[in-house]
Amino acid sequence: MSTDAVTMEKIVSLCKRRGIVFQSSEIYGGIGATYDYGHYGVLLTNNVKAQWWKSLLQERDDVVALDSAIIQHPKTWEASGHVAGFSDPLVDCRTCKRRFREDKLEISECGEQPSKIPGQGKNCDLTEARQFNLMFKTTVGPVEETGSTVFLRPETAQGIFLNFKHYLQFARKKPPFGIAQVGKSFRNEITTENFIFRTREFEQMEMEFFVPPAQADQWYEYWKQTRYDWYIKLGIRPDHLRLRPHDPDELSHYSSGTSDVEYLFPTDWSELEGIANRGNFDLTQHAEHSKQNLEYVDTASGERYLPHVIEPAAGVGRATLAFLCDAYDEDEIDGETRTVLRLHPQLAPVKAAVLPLVKKDGQPEVAREIVTELRERMQVEYDEGGAIGRRYRRQDEIGTPWSITVDHQTLEDRTVTVRDRDSLAQERIAISDLADELERRLRAPWRSPKLDS
Amino acid sequence: MSTDAVTMEKIVSLCKRRGIVFQSSEIYGGIGATYDYGHYGVLLTNNVKAQWWKSLLQERDDVVALDSAIIQHPKTWEASGHVAGFSDPLVDCRTCKRRFREDKLEISECGEQPSKIPGQGKNCDLTEARQFNLMFKTTVGPVEETGSTVFLRPETAQGIFLNFKHYLQFARKKPPFGIAQVGKSFRNEITTENFIFRTREFEQMEMEFFVPPAQADQWYEYWKQTRYDWYIKLGIRPDHLRLRPHDPDELSHYSSGTSDVEYLFPTDWSELEGIANRGNFDLTQHAEHSKQNLEYVDTASGERYLPHVIEPAAGVGRATLAFLCDAYDEDEIDGETRTVLRLHPQLAPVKAAVLPLVKKDGQPEVAREIVTELRERMQVEYDEGGAIGRRYRRQDEIGTPWSITVDHQTLEDRTVTVRDRDSLAQERIAISDLADELERRLRAPWRSPKLDS
Repeated sequence: MSTDAVTMEKIVSLCKRRGIVFQSSEIYGGIGATYDYGHYGVLLTNNVKAQWWKSLLQERDDVVALDSAIIQHPKTWEASGHVAGFSDPLVDCRTCKRRFREDKLEISECGEQPSKIPGQGKNCDLTEARQFNLMFKTTVGPVEETGSTVFLRPETAQGIFLNFKHYLQFARKKPPFGIAQVGKSFRNEITTENFIFRTREFEQMEMEFFVPPAQADQWYEYWKQTRYDWYIKLGIRPDHLRLRPHDPDELSHYSSGTSDVEYLFPTDWSELEGIANRGNFDLTQHAEHSKQNLEYVDTASGERYLPHVIEPAAGVGRATLAFLCDAYDEDEIDGETRTVLRLHPQLAPVKAAVLPLVKKDGQPEVAREIVTELRERMQVEYDEGGAIGRRYRRQDEIGTPWSITVDHQTLEDRTVTVRDRDSLAQERIAISDLADELERRLRAPWRSPKLDS
Repeated sequence: MSTDAVTMEKIVSLCKRRGIVFQSSEIYGGIGATYDYGHYGVLLTNNVKAQWWKSLLQERDDVVALDSAIIQHPKTWEASGHVAGFSDPLVDCRTCKRRFREDKLEISECGEQPSKIPGQGKNCDLTEARQFNLMFKTTVGPVEETGSTVFLRPETAQGIFLNFKHYLQFARKKPPFGIAQVGKSFRNEITTENFIFRTREFEQMEMEFFVPPAQADQWYEYWKQTRYDWYIKLGIRPDHLRLRPHDPDELSHYSSGTSDVEYLFPTDWSELEGIANRGNFDLTQHAEHSKQNLEYVDTASGERYLPHVIEPAAGVGRATLAFLCDAYDEDEIDGETRTVLRLHPQLAPVKAAVLPLVKKDGQPEVAREIVTELRERMQVEYDEGGAIGRRYRRQDEIGTPWSITVDHQTLEDRTVTVRDRDSLAQERIAISDLADELERRLRAPWRSPKLDS
């Protein structure tokens, strides 16, 4: 008996209750649109990132990694167009001195609801819109007064373009090949929303895939599908995931095609990841601003060209939120409602919990032995506190796929029960087979039980 | 025939040549003391971080994880003392308008060497010293002119103290327990030095271990030893690693004891990690500034206290640099000098290279099959370009522990040779046993072959 009764309120509440994600700097009253990830949140996001890396670096030959600096040379952002164009239209209130995004006035708060007509707000006396750049500025170097103004990167992508030429040498790569990066970016958003969906500080997983110009369209199709499949493979239900091509009027001027992977959040369909066919816009800009030739030269054919670029750009926070929403479930066991995260085992923060049925008769000691053996290979948790049913619920709530119970029979025949989070089936397994069996299950293909409910 | 001829120049050169670490924003002339990590650098640092997490989260019960925001509430840095006291003494030159760290004048450059005596520089006319805060400032929120001034965190530690109280609830923990965090920190250093040893943007691996006050000294001893042992287990030679207690005049005013884990870099002994007995200074400060009670209350005994804190604070960049320096080796094979990184297999960016002896006779196809099987479990590389000896050298230089060669015999009996990076021994192994055998070797305890040379 499964319901799909997930709401954002339930997700936020679970995240706070179990220390997955919560408001940052709370003891000082918090800081807007900024969140900290707690213990299970770190384990979960580390798994999300590891799966992204694995799919690109470990399982393929044509993608290499980069970790470029957050503070790059400021010319980067002149060349990329961010200094001139990365801005929101803002209006000020002459009365209350607050500032709003003009295109989002209806969701802002300013005493009474402000009017869109300048000068006609109920409380607000609004100015005409001005452009407000979203990049955070700071000063680097020894002389504050005359030091260089630099920016916190608003995207990880540009660090990749700056290093493109290097990679032809180091990595002995030629197009088609990709450079992938995971890292923090910063945007001074005026309107933030929906928990970790849009935050001022956020972690991106971006790749720039460089291709011969004539192959751009086919690689664009390929990466749309490949990135869509990544979420499906990690358990997102297909009826909650779609590829939505941008309308012509949504496209950036340099893009010949962009599609969003969208997830059906409890609120609505929203963007998880954008896959853009960016042409050679960025390399052209950086070649011009750096006065360097960034062309690829094929030593065999003598052909030279600026590669075109396909960019799948995902967010760790959004992906994590989607995995949480898709996994969230409630069912009924013995007349009680249970909250359970039906996460893909590879994503689950904890793979197995080891629970002595009682806190005596040698059971804790055997449970400890099992923990010692398992933790060499995976993240496990030992819990001896409270009734066994309550301990199962604690694990269900954080998505632990298997709970291993040590009972009186264990002391006789060295077997334990392995309880499955989803089917609730309990199977007896010899302790000596346990680690291999759990690893086998971890590697097996997985299908969300919510698909069958 | 092994030599210990490592120099910083050789490390920097190898890092640049193979794209491990290199100057950031190079196409725009670079940006001071900022580096980008390339493909092998990302794989290596990801392994360093994974080992750190594993030793604290996976192998223990008493440490939990956190990932707090880089931009925290600005009161954080008033409470911690960073706004008032995190500064270097700087002097200005009235003639050339440049600024220097007073305590490092001898290594600064200002036309001619400046004199330490104000007014007496050969070219420089120096002012008295002023304090210059090392925190990067920026403005957050919708109103730039009246927005909040915030700081990029200069250390990850304070995010942990801010969340201490939460963790007593979420994580059902009571002292002694630790909260661990990996993340970027930023310091506007005037004097940067030695490649990635001191950079303006750097990644920390910090833990705050909260203990009952009476246990502080014993836990301090415990963590000094445990952190020292972590480096040794990962292959650092004991004669290149030492624990150095701070002299009383080096201690922070709140610390009753600090020891550095120091590594013998090619330049000299330098700090890798500090382990500090910080008392309850930070919790006291945050309790006072937030007006919240941060005491731990033992529900059984009714005892209440502010825990004392032991802080092991390591840097990803420094640890990586030490692992690289310690692993760097040159030896002679068949009359030629070979460069080899004798990295612990768990740290090696690539675990195995798969090399067909010739690019025909079905060898590439079998090699590809092997790659497909291995890459489900570990990072492997396929290379068919150039003479086999040259391909081995490329792998030696990035520290790949095992090179698997497919030859004519492979096509007959489905065996391959596995060449060991260090012993150069070649062993024939059945393809069907290969993945398990490599995993077994990866998990085995490891000892640097440089210890025996």
